[in-house]
Amino acid sequence: MTPDDAGSPEAVADRLGVWLVGALGDVATTSVLGAAALARGLVGSTGLVSESEACAGIPLAPWASLVFGGHDVRDGDPVASARALADAGVVGVPLVSELEKELSAYGARVRPGVVYGAGEVVRSLESPSARARRADGPLAALAALREDLARFRREHALARVVVVHVASTEPAYEGGEELARGEDLWRALERGAELPASLLYALAAIEEGCPYVNFTPSLGAGCGGLRERARERGVPHMGRDGKTGQTLLRTSLAPMFRARNLRVLSWSGFNILGNRDGAVLDEPAANQAKTQGKDRVLGSILGESLGTSLTRIDYVPSLGDWKTAWDFVHFEGFLGARMQLHCTWHGADSALAAPLVLDLVRLLDAAARAGRSGLQEGLACFFKTPHGVSEQSFPAQVRLLEDYLAELREALASPSA
Amino acid sequence: MTPDDAGSPEAVADRLGVWLVGALGDVATTSVLGAAALARGLVGSTGLVSESEACAGIPLAPWASLVFGGHDVRDGDPVASARALADAGVVGVPLVSELEKELSAYGARVRPGVVYGAGEVVRSLESPSARARRADGPLAALAALREDLARFRREHALARVVVVHVASTEPAYEGGEELARGEDLWRALERGAELPASLLYALAAIEEGCPYVNFTPSLGAGCGGLRERARERGVPHMGRDGKTGQTLLRTSLAPMFRARNLRVLSWSGFNILGNRDGAVLDEPAANQAKTQGKDRVLGSILGESLGTSLTRIDYVPSLGDWKTAWDFVHFEGFLGARMQLHCTWHGADSALAAPLVLDLVRLLDAAARAGRSGLQEGLACFFKTPHGVSEQSFPAQVRLLEDYLAELREALASPSA
Amino acid sequence: MTPDDAGSPEAVADRLGVWLVGALGDVATTSVLGAAALARGLVGSTGLVSESEACAGIPLAPWASLVFGGHDVRDGDPVASARALADAGVVGVPLVSELEKELSAYGARVRPGVVYGAGEVVRSLESPSARARRADGPLAALAALREDLARFRREHALARVVVVHVASTEPAYEGGEELARGEDLWRALERGAELPASLLYALAAIEEGCPYVNFTPSLGAGCGGLRERARERGVPHMGRDGKTGQTLLRTSLAPMFRARNLRVLSWSGFNILGNRDGAVLDEPAANQAKTQGKDRVLGSILGESLGTSLTRIDYVPSLGDWKTAWDFVHFEGFLGARMQLHCTWHGADSALAAPLVLDLVRLLDAAARAGRSGLQEGLACFFKTPHGVSEQSFPAQVRLLEDYLAELREALASPSA
Amino acid sequence: MTPDDAGSPEAVADRLGVWLVGALGDVATTSVLGAAALARGLVGSTGLVSESEACAGIPLAPWASLVFGGHDVRDGDPVASARALADAGVVGVPLVSELEKELSAYGARVRPGVVYGAGEVVRSLESPSARARRADGPLAALAALREDLARFRREHALARVVVVHVASTEPAYEGGEELARGEDLWRALERGAELPASLLYALAAIEEGCPYVNFTPSLGAGCGGLRERARERGVPHMGRDGKTGQTLLRTSLAPMFRARNLRVLSWSGFNILGNRDGAVLDEPAANQAKTQGKDRVLGSILGESLGTSLTRIDYVPSLGDWKTAWDFVHFEGFLGARMQLHCTWHGADSALAAPLVLDLVRLLDAAARAGRSGLQEGLACFFKTPHGVSEQSFPAQVRLLEDYLAELREALASPSA
Repeated sequence: MTPDDAGSPEAVADRLGVWLVGALGDVATTSVLGAAALARGLVGSTGLVSESEACAGIPLAPWASLVFGGHDVRDGDPVASARALADAGVVGVPLVSELEKELSAYGARVRPGVVYGAGEVVRSLESPSARARRADGPLAALAALREDLARFRREHALARVVVVHVASTEPAYEGGEELARGEDLWRALERGAELPASLLYALAAIEEGCPYVNFTPSLGAGCGGLRERARERGVPHMGRDGKTGQTLLRTSLAPMFRARNLRVLSWSGFNILGNRDGAVLDEPAANQAKTQGKDRVLGSILGESLGTSLTRIDYVPSLGDWKTAWDFVHFEGFLGARMQLHCTWHGADSALAAPLVLDLVRLLDAAARAGRSGLQEGLACFFKTPHGVSEQSFPAQVRLLEDYLAELREALASPSA
Repeated sequence: MTPDDAGSPEAVADRLGVWLVGALGDVATTSVLGAAALARGLVGSTGLVSESEACAGIPLAPWASLVFGGHDVRDGDPVASARALADAGVVGVPLVSELEKELSAYGARVRPGVVYGAGEVVRSLESPSARARRADGPLAALAALREDLARFRREHALARVVVVHVASTEPAYEGGEELARGEDLWRALERGAELPASLLYALAAIEEGCPYVNFTPSLGAGCGGLRERARERGVPHMGRDGKTGQTLLRTSLAPMFRARNLRVLSWSGFNILGNRDGAVLDEPAANQAKTQGKDRVLGSILGESLGTSLTRIDYVPSLGDWKTAWDFVHFEGFLGARMQLHCTWHGADSALAAPLVLDLVRLLDAAARAGRSGLQEGLACFFKTPHGVSEQSFPAQVRLLEDYLAELREALASPSA
Repeated sequence: MTPDDAGSPEAVADRLGVWLVGALGDVATTSVLGAAALARGLVGSTGLVSESEACAGIPLAPWASLVFGGHDVRDGDPVASARALADAGVVGVPLVSELEKELSAYGARVRPGVVYGAGEVVRSLESPSARARRADGPLAALAALREDLARFRREHALARVVVVHVASTEPAYEGGEELARGEDLWRALERGAELPASLLYALAAIEEGCPYVNFTPSLGAGCGGLRERARERGVPHMGRDGKTGQTLLRTSLAPMFRARNLRVLSWSGFNILGNRDGAVLDEPAANQAKTQGKDRVLGSILGESLGTSLTRIDYVPSLGDWKTAWDFVHFEGFLGARMQLHCTWHGADSALAAPLVLDLVRLLDAAARAGRSGLQEGLACFFKTPHGVSEQSFPAQVRLLEDYLAELREALASPSA
Repeated sequence: MTPDDAGSPEAVADRLGVWLVGALGDVATTSVLGAAALARGLVGSTGLVSESEACAGIPLAPWASLVFGGHDVRDGDPVASARALADAGVVGVPLVSELEKELSAYGARVRPGVVYGAGEVVRSLESPSARARRADGPLAALAALREDLARFRREHALARVVVVHVASTEPAYEGGEELARGEDLWRALERGAELPASLLYALAAIEEGCPYVNFTPSLGAGCGGLRERARERGVPHMGRDGKTGQTLLRTSLAPMFRARNLRVLSWSGFNILGNRDGAVLDEPAANQAKTQGKDRVLGSILGESLGTSLTRIDYVPSLGDWKTAWDFVHFEGFLGARMQLHCTWHGADSALAAPLVLDLVRLLDAAARAGRSGLQEGLACFFKTPHGVSEQSFPAQVRLLEDYLAELREALASPSA
């Protein structure tokens, strides 16, 4: 396929590879399970933006065309992960039984990841094969990751491959000068600098020409050097940190307070969750990486009318894949009257994240076919801290998405239509 | 002043009359207190949309130019009402002490209202003077209401008068054929038909050329006949039912569920409140009038993805002017996962309503000066069930307001500027 | 078996019949499923008071000795009911598969009930065989119910049979003079008076010498006439209305406010539930029967320090067997400071009720073996409105239970031990 | 007065000194304000256990007999503190105006405290006179504290003085061997060991023969050495950490789960508060001292049926004296059904604490008059982590109190009665 015919009707029907970094985690498992269920017509489209009215008329990859593979630093079995999600009431028991074959086939396509810059919990999970990769140093690891992507594309005759990072949160790594420009980045790698794994995965994707999504708060492609490379390689990408629950709620509510000129004296939020993500976030460094982004969002919408804000994430094992968030908004109205809003959100983390992962795969694939590259700011509404977008209001981001979808629709309209 | 110079810089500085129907209620009292406090620079502008960035550049009536009067069916003293609000923690005790003179002067300008079509609680409050008015029949009552407005304007040398209905909710009166056209309406009045008081107040306002706001769920100007008259008389008006609390929250949250294609299985809401409004709503007929509007809003935003909805309002005297609302949203995400959102809103009813009343007074006055008449759909975001606007999403309504404010800004720009 | 050896070690190991009125409902299904699972060692004893430390040393019927049967007015299949509960996440899918045989056998032992004094929802479910029974009139129906119990005992060689009423709530029927004494009751029946079905079931149980539990707000054995007969027949019984959720919480919290001399200004509670129980309670008469009991409880604990109380129950189908209750306690502390407590309880109705049903079966059976008859006030903590007990504080009722258990322990101690 | 006539009717009417450590804090201010209001009959007895039915028949010190003084490490004015509480809506504005004289008189009786072992926030508040005391070393400071108590008693002709510690929480200091016995304690002091200030205050009280209450989580009299001295000196005392809000709620709810054999999978609690107490607790060391006690309580009641527990306290300045606590209880019922209880408590910290302080003053005074010394375990229900009492269930502690009150009642009954 040449770039020229990427927008043709046939392109949509080609096989689309989806490569998940953190392939054995709950979000990846739910994404693979969900896509397989959709391909077989076993479930409806609830939760999928790409199946809503908003995306009508845009030729998106059909569910049956998706082929999944991925990287993970640990050993594991997607069937077992799916069963655990069924036990936790996130997905149906019969659905998992029905789709065991698809999950097993996916499991066979999972390749060893690399552990650089990870926290202790993640490091403790490292499989022998992942350890072997790490031992060879960053440059060799990068080459191995790239080769995995290339082979995946070759072996499954994939027209295109989209890479999505859904691995556990790394401790914050905003990096220094070495990340600002592409060439410095390479020099750092050649020096053997231990840049975080999320950056290596992103670099591998971009160098292989694969659209890339960073669904986590980790660094990923969020530095100047990688953005530069994405533009040079003509690769569309976006991140970071999927907006699945509390921040979705906060960025829907905060504009309401702003529109009514109400003063938020304090906004306090407490998250408790029980999955591996929670265990990882029990480490202070990863926790800080996550909560900082969450906190900044409110200030960005409310400006000076925000007094203080507070966000905590705690690990409560009994919750399993469920996440409960309590938000307390203390606000002042006319003549100084002090009022309160309390919200409790109880959601299944993976069931909230997986449809967004699938939406982003299909939309970024469409963007690539439409010839777009670099940051896709129009997808901001999917992210907690969207790259290159200062607008944090969810309703405003939804309008950005509508405009973006209109552009995609036009760019991908068949010439004869 | 002639219509031609209504938009001139001087027009803004003229004295603007504000006539409140339900003049002795908590919302009216808080509005008068608040405007006086603003005129004296005693309080900030929190809660006022008309003081926010969004209204920058529109010449709005200064606080010091406002003169308040109104109708009420009962006897009472605004100073006592204000003190009760201070005791309930809605407004500050010192503020009330500071502004007693203004409140007393306002009290002296309150004229007897009429009780037609009211529920029992309201009827039980009827003062002798209100009873006398009612005894003369609707036509005579209408004439008396008009004369009150005309005299108010005359005695206080007011350039313009805006009328706002903030009286207690009437039992639902959607009316029949007699309300559809202006002439039929007059015929019905001449026959002595007991149309609800809210309609008489609205008619009096429109016939006197006063911009009119219906801040309650009562009928007001919400029938074809009155809309026709408003257009004929060149009077701008809008309604109905101020969007102060639970519905504000619901119409901010529901679009979030829609944007993410989440299915709302059920949305259940319970309101408890303790002021006179609550006592009135303790009567089934008024209660139904109120909850119907509240319920319809969700279906309008969520369409078929809404399973069931439920709204209850109960009277809990201990809450005084405070209103607590609990919303439980049961929703379904990807692969059928069932999740929950609970919200508890604890707000001071009058402190939420009063700034919107003041905003609407200033904006409708600006609309009149800009030569607008008939329904002002751009003000939809201020109302639970906005006349003539099917869009119920609060963020979408805020965009409508922004467009509307841009029009006002342009229309009222001084030619020399 | 003679009464004399009822307390012997062997008695405990005899087969104990459990007859459930409302045999195909969710509570009955969960009770049968649970007892079967316990007999097979498939589940733990969480939720069972009779398996807790408190009951140590009392010889209670082993799970494997229980044989279940019952009455229902509709046709149905316990396996299907159990599967629906598994789909709703109340019980595990594998558990239901494992115990299908037990559930089916139970289904075959369900006999037609009678519909007298029921609300519309229940009447609409009436099976042809139940209709036939009703057609013969109350006296004949009573005889048929008794014969069912006698045959159940005979066919399964049961040492004893305990009857538990877990059918849907009837509209309130406090009855008149005809209920006060046993002989008047019989006369009323002979006249063909349509006394509520719950009374007939209770009478059948008592006349057959079966210990009886009324787990619902219906009349059951709650009138003077039946209490008299129970004493005469030497039958222990207790009711009414299982304390499973909101009232359990309220009667645990209210004593805290009392102990600290805090004044409860208002206590407002809203329940939403989605099972058949909810559908039945959607009828005003049944609803009133239920909420009245709930409301009285608070006043009984808090006395004059309770301002107002409010309880609402609404039917929200999406919740299935789940029940969500929101309680808002507005209270006053020292120097008039006004404070708030909000509680949200989200529980699976049947999973909360079933273990109490099983506890009551075992404890009432032990009471019978210990030679007790009439009201068993010591079991008050299991009921929302316990017969013959004015103490509503849950902690105080727990102490009553401890004393009662001590008596049972002593009475049933083997002489040689 | 000799010990012999301490129980006489006259004793009750004597003047009783109340010495508050942390005299300028919110709890102290509210206590003094409240006692003065009660003495003048300006307020009711809501929130006071000592005014409830439970204490009927026990001769307690009349409100008018109380004289207040205290220690504080900072300079300040109780009138200003009281006005701030009124602004925050904790107490009424008119009440403060009415009682300014009493508050001022109290302010004049406040003496400099000492800062040993305090956190940074407290140290930053140290007044020059407190600094001077500290400079002289622990032994001299102790002597000064004692002299303050002695002079207070002398100057105001007080029959007895009760000391209550209501100062900010110190970082945890469980101490070592030097605290276990009285003589070692003295030796440590003589060596100049910087034992925490709370211990010095407690020691001063005990040596002066004053009944002592530790209302905070600080060490106070909670070591073997001081308990020994209290017994030797015949002084009754009790602590520690007033049970005012979240723990009161938790210890009322946890027994409910235990009584029903429900398994608490996790209990997570988040507190936010805005007063100085909150600012102090923003320091990790003080925070840990506080949360540890809170967490232990649940395990003590629920035993092995408790999975995990979590308690966080955060400082949110906008809340002022208000404290909001959110508790999420994740529990398992019959057959493994997983359920939830959420509670939100919104209370005024000082209004909850002050009446307990006053209750403890009166009850400890009565205990002293009844000839009791050492730990008063019967008062356990007033404390989060009661000394010498393993029972944490609030209802069980209430029963302990009832027994204790019966003993006091009997001991203090006038011989002629």
